[in-house]
Amino acid sequence: MSAIEVVRLDPTPDQLVYTFGGHQPLLRVRPGTVIELTTEDCFGGRVRGVDDLPSQVCEFPRLNPVTGPIHVEGARPGDLLAVHFVDIRPRRDWAVSSTFPHFGALTTTHSTAMLHAPLEELVWRYDVDVERGIVRYRARRSELEVELPLDPMHGTVGVAPAGGEVVMSITPSAHGGNMDTPELRAGTTVYLPVNVDGAMLAIGDGHCRQGEGEVCGTAVEAAMETVIVVDVVRGALRAWPRLENDEFIMSTGSVRPLEDAFRISQHDLVGWTADLLDLDPLDALQLVSQAGLAPVGNVVDTNYTMVAKLPTSVLGGARPYDGLHQRLRDVGRSYLAERGSVAS
Amino acid sequence: MSAIEVVRLDPTPDQLVYTFGGHQPLLRVRPGTVIELTTEDCFGGRVRGVDDLPSQVCEFPRLNPVTGPIHVEGARPGDLLAVHFVDIRPRRDWAVSSTFPHFGALTTTHSTAMLHAPLEELVWRYDVDVERGIVRYRARRSELEVELPLDPMHGTVGVAPAGGEVVMSITPSAHGGNMDTPELRAGTTVYLPVNVDGAMLAIGDGHCRQGEGEVCGTAVEAAMETVIVVDVVRGALRAWPRLENDEFIMSTGSVRPLEDAFRISQHDLVGWTADLLDLDPLDALQLVSQAGLAPVGNVVDTNYTMVAKLPTSVLGGARPYDGLHQRLRDVGRSYLAERGSVAS
Amino acid sequence: MSAIEVVRLDPTPDQLVYTFGGHQPLLRVRPGTVIELTTEDCFGGRVRGVDDLPSQVCEFPRLNPVTGPIHVEGARPGDLLAVHFVDIRPRRDWAVSSTFPHFGALTTTHSTAMLHAPLEELVWRYDVDVERGIVRYRARRSELEVELPLDPMHGTVGVAPAGGEVVMSITPSAHGGNMDTPELRAGTTVYLPVNVDGAMLAIGDGHCRQGEGEVCGTAVEAAMETVIVVDVVRGALRAWPRLENDEFIMSTGSVRPLEDAFRISQHDLVGWTADLLDLDPLDALQLVSQAGLAPVGNVVDTNYTMVAKLPTSVLGGARPYDGLHQRLRDVGRSYLAERGSVAS
Amino acid sequence: MSAIEVVRLDPTPDQLVYTFGGHQPLLRVRPGTVIELTTEDCFGGRVRGVDDLPSQVCEFPRLNPVTGPIHVEGARPGDLLAVHFVDIRPRRDWAVSSTFPHFGALTTTHSTAMLHAPLEELVWRYDVDVERGIVRYRARRSELEVELPLDPMHGTVGVAPAGGEVVMSITPSAHGGNMDTPELRAGTTVYLPVNVDGAMLAIGDGHCRQGEGEVCGTAVEAAMETVIVVDVVRGALRAWPRLENDEFIMSTGSVRPLEDAFRISQHDLVGWTADLLDLDPLDALQLVSQAGLAPVGNVVDTNYTMVAKLPTSVLGGARPYDGLHQRLRDVGRSYLAERGSVAS
Repeated sequence: MSAIEVVRLDPTPDQLVYTFGGHQPLLRVRPGTVIELTTEDCFGGRVRGVDDLPSQVCEFPRLNPVTGPIHVEGARPGDLLAVHFVDIRPRRDWAVSSTFPHFGALTTTHSTAMLHAPLEELVWRYDVDVERGIVRYRARRSELEVELPLDPMHGTVGVAPAGGEVVMSITPSAHGGNMDTPELRAGTTVYLPVNVDGAMLAIGDGHCRQGEGEVCGTAVEAAMETVIVVDVVRGALRAWPRLENDEFIMSTGSVRPLEDAFRISQHDLVGWTADLLDLDPLDALQLVSQAGLAPVGNVVDTNYTMVAKLPTSVLGGARPYDGLHQRLRDVGRSYLAERGSVAS
Repeated sequence: MSAIEVVRLDPTPDQLVYTFGGHQPLLRVRPGTVIELTTEDCFGGRVRGVDDLPSQVCEFPRLNPVTGPIHVEGARPGDLLAVHFVDIRPRRDWAVSSTFPHFGALTTTHSTAMLHAPLEELVWRYDVDVERGIVRYRARRSELEVELPLDPMHGTVGVAPAGGEVVMSITPSAHGGNMDTPELRAGTTVYLPVNVDGAMLAIGDGHCRQGEGEVCGTAVEAAMETVIVVDVVRGALRAWPRLENDEFIMSTGSVRPLEDAFRISQHDLVGWTADLLDLDPLDALQLVSQAGLAPVGNVVDTNYTMVAKLPTSVLGGARPYDGLHQRLRDVGRSYLAERGSVAS
Repeated sequence: MSAIEVVRLDPTPDQLVYTFGGHQPLLRVRPGTVIELTTEDCFGGRVRGVDDLPSQVCEFPRLNPVTGPIHVEGARPGDLLAVHFVDIRPRRDWAVSSTFPHFGALTTTHSTAMLHAPLEELVWRYDVDVERGIVRYRARRSELEVELPLDPMHGTVGVAPAGGEVVMSITPSAHGGNMDTPELRAGTTVYLPVNVDGAMLAIGDGHCRQGEGEVCGTAVEAAMETVIVVDVVRGALRAWPRLENDEFIMSTGSVRPLEDAFRISQHDLVGWTADLLDLDPLDALQLVSQAGLAPVGNVVDTNYTMVAKLPTSVLGGARPYDGLHQRLRDVGRSYLAERGSVAS
Repeated sequence: MSAIEVVRLDPTPDQLVYTFGGHQPLLRVRPGTVIELTTEDCFGGRVRGVDDLPSQVCEFPRLNPVTGPIHVEGARPGDLLAVHFVDIRPRRDWAVSSTFPHFGALTTTHSTAMLHAPLEELVWRYDVDVERGIVRYRARRSELEVELPLDPMHGTVGVAPAGGEVVMSITPSAHGGNMDTPELRAGTTVYLPVNVDGAMLAIGDGHCRQGEGEVCGTAVEAAMETVIVVDVVRGALRAWPRLENDEFIMSTGSVRPLEDAFRISQHDLVGWTADLLDLDPLDALQLVSQAGLAPVGNVVDTNYTMVAKLPTSVLGGARPYDGLHQRLRDVGRSYLAERGSVAS
């Protein structure tokens, strides 16, 4: 553990940013560094109870703040940035969710434009009990309460986009961003394509848990205390973010329509599988077709996100990027052991 | 077990049908009957090895044969037909999969029409080992072999459509049909809307296993020996098929585009949850948004299928249709106990 | 004119049908026959004023009645049926349009399922003045009246589907059906793929006029007195309906999503252009890309319809099917000259 | 004419930009100013003949250069920028079009990801004859030549996006951008939402003509000499670009999928019509449904563009923005009369 460099990033509210791209680095680190960072929730912490309507207390475009950007030294266009999530834990004993006018999968939106008035804007406040590992849902219009497992994750993680673009943090795309998949939990490594020197990583939008699809438009939104370790894979040019945990390799696609997000994620997973197992593309297609999973990420953001998963059990001994995920996992475990924490 | 009526349906090749609707019943049963039936694979059993190209040995529209229709006495328009899958087991020690010209999620099709030549048509033959509970994948263009878990299911189950329509068995829609979701395994109850007297149930397209999305267009296709038990729920008018197993209630949607299939499945699950928990629709939306899962069924058939799942743990003691699934599950277990079989 | 065989088809209400496929022929004709036929409006004539709400006076699935089927002798699978529209004229001095719950492009529907209540159901009654060539729009909630040009067309024309399917008349697909494109006016020839002996043509859903997209879900709906002439093109196997008038050749695609309907229509037009001008497919793609038009048909029916148009001026002297459209046009003109009518 | 201020903007190649947003103004003008400007073609002028393959001679992301940004004094967020196109004429006697790997409506792309190899990359060079008003298509693989009408337009016109975003010029969205609709010809006024002080207008991507849909991915691409006049409408906050010429008002939508682009454009046109004619929204929906046109813009760019058109004849005397289009049209005519030119 003496070899692990640990730095801390706890931005003030003024330091939070709302785009990928367009900002000077808030922190510079070397590959291999463990970063302890804090994130604010997607509402900037302004929705604290059922009477704080997001459309009233939040101000466009200051939504979905992210912590960063973090410049990773030596990361260059054409590399992959590996971000391993060591720990994600809620900073408060409450969290919130809401409907939001013109946002969500089952309502008229600015894109799926209809002549209906928006659905009613409602806020739900959850109790968060880290010790018991639960969040408590409370119905607004009845007495029902339900305990759901705490399953912390980040909706938003990404780097500066290609082509000099500056993209709002609510958008998921090839640079990562607001993918809103529950797969982005502790124990997972994310691989992001590097488009600019230093990659310019930023992270936000913590969720105590999220259903697949994020149907109403928001998850159980929470400020987080998060630990990551970053590294760089040289010359591993990729178009779309990939994920890996101990049980699955995962490709993502974030576009509209949803079938194209599905196609991107499956196409990438087929190519990845062909690379790892030295397979003909059609042989890889066949294997993925029978062994793969395809959960929805989100169907509410400016792009929709699909995830394509293949069990690592199918891979025999093959592992991506020379086993980088396992090495970062080990770094994370060492860090946690030293700190006396327990990884989720 | 003495109270359980068991009938057998083992159609000759000439008795297989290729549409939902348009046929006289092959069998008439009372609600509560256990039916042992056999199904042929989606290729009509004509693809037996890697040299049997489907486009050459199969003849449109004689694809995807189904066993039935079964007239369930007393089922009337406005009722739900409950079909509980007691057992599904492969009838042969091999199964096949293939690409197929103009079919699949990552290729030009008749709908997603492009100027490319079709992908190459290839067949994969799998070994099926029921005892060991595995199927064996063999790459066509390398030596790789991979064992995958046997996980038998039916791609196609449905009833006669509404409006006097006759629909090819390859199409999933509100009447069920070719939904191609791996959730349709033994231990699951399917609820189908009844459109005509007797419902006219038919089943086919067994898969030894299937990845979510069925990306290449086909699963590990196999003839099956299947046991079901059927029942009728009076006046439970529903638009779309629902599923239930011991752990989840599930809604489905089968249309294009994929986001509308998602919307249908989520919309139905929100309504179902509101009914079961006596919740306001927005409260149900919130609960489903945080607790639900959303796996893809297929993105290759004439309609795409999405599944929306909610854990029964969220429901407290509430169960759909007065616990019908559990009662049918018990019937199935009694049947299996008597037969000396073991449910999957 | 003595050479032209003219027959009349004026079905009683009981003779109207609601599906393509599944019916015995109401009429048998030889190729080259002129058919004078009547059609009822999409509401079966039951919506006569603003107080006749379609959801109350119409009964599912008895919507969108069609006149037919007409058996055309000698038409066999693999042929094309050519249907030239000689004349289309409203039978009444009024017509109606409406919103309809869960139907339309800017509202929650059964497919684009949302949590909104349906838009209000409203009926608009139009005056129809054939002499002046106008219909009169009257706002329901203000005094505004607007005269719009009368431009009669049929929303629905098709043949029996392939594969033994029976399809509700409201669905457009490869067999034609409810394409709802304003291009289907007098002076136009429609080419439909023949799937069964006799083709089994049926026609309905007259519109006094229709905007592109049919956004609210219905056009200016009217019963029609229509004259067609039919013919058969041998061995001209085609997947999708094509249209031709004196100025354009047109391909159609009717599926969801809308981009796939666009792809189908453009793909067919590129192939058609390549055939007519003996061009390489990429050369045809280039020509269509610069010279083509792409109006929407409908974005409301169970499938969406796109039209791809190429000016005949681009074709030099080349004309499809050996100039069949022009020959049918001449037959129609002769008929009209004899009857003292004037084609639209 | 003495009252008309005329300025000229003829950027050097180094001054061309490739994004909306992220640049200092190249020019500052007052509302009412006539601007004579030049634009380079989408390939930066590097594709000059059939042997200049775009993927070889062009360098991502330096594609689709635009001229600007132009700061219009007094334009503030919440205003509309009106840009009237007075004249658009090709600067060379040739133009080019091409296929491009992974781009186009009938090919695998980075979004509609498939396992096919890309279509062949081919370039077509057109002769441009301004005097005769034609461009000449020449097939690459046969002797066919076709004259098509010259119909100059700009594919790309837009302003700085909202939210601090910087967007590549190839993307159409709410800020305008690469809408690629042939409606953007001389005689047309475009209304763009102002998101930043000065609006920051930029224009590029001239086309000698373009089919609807831009199916192959490119139009007849040309450097242009273009004259515009700009003005500002105070407090006319709008979400999406609108167009107006003497015959039509037009709304646009640029998103994916294509049905959402359709919905946006129709939703906006319904609202616009309701405003202009003081109609209830459902009355406006009905009128647009029967009188509107819906041509495709493009189905190839990062967002797809639909146009919704309503004839001004339907509007009685009502005209948007107090007749601004007509006033700008008059300014343009005065300018052209003085210069001895003839507007298209």
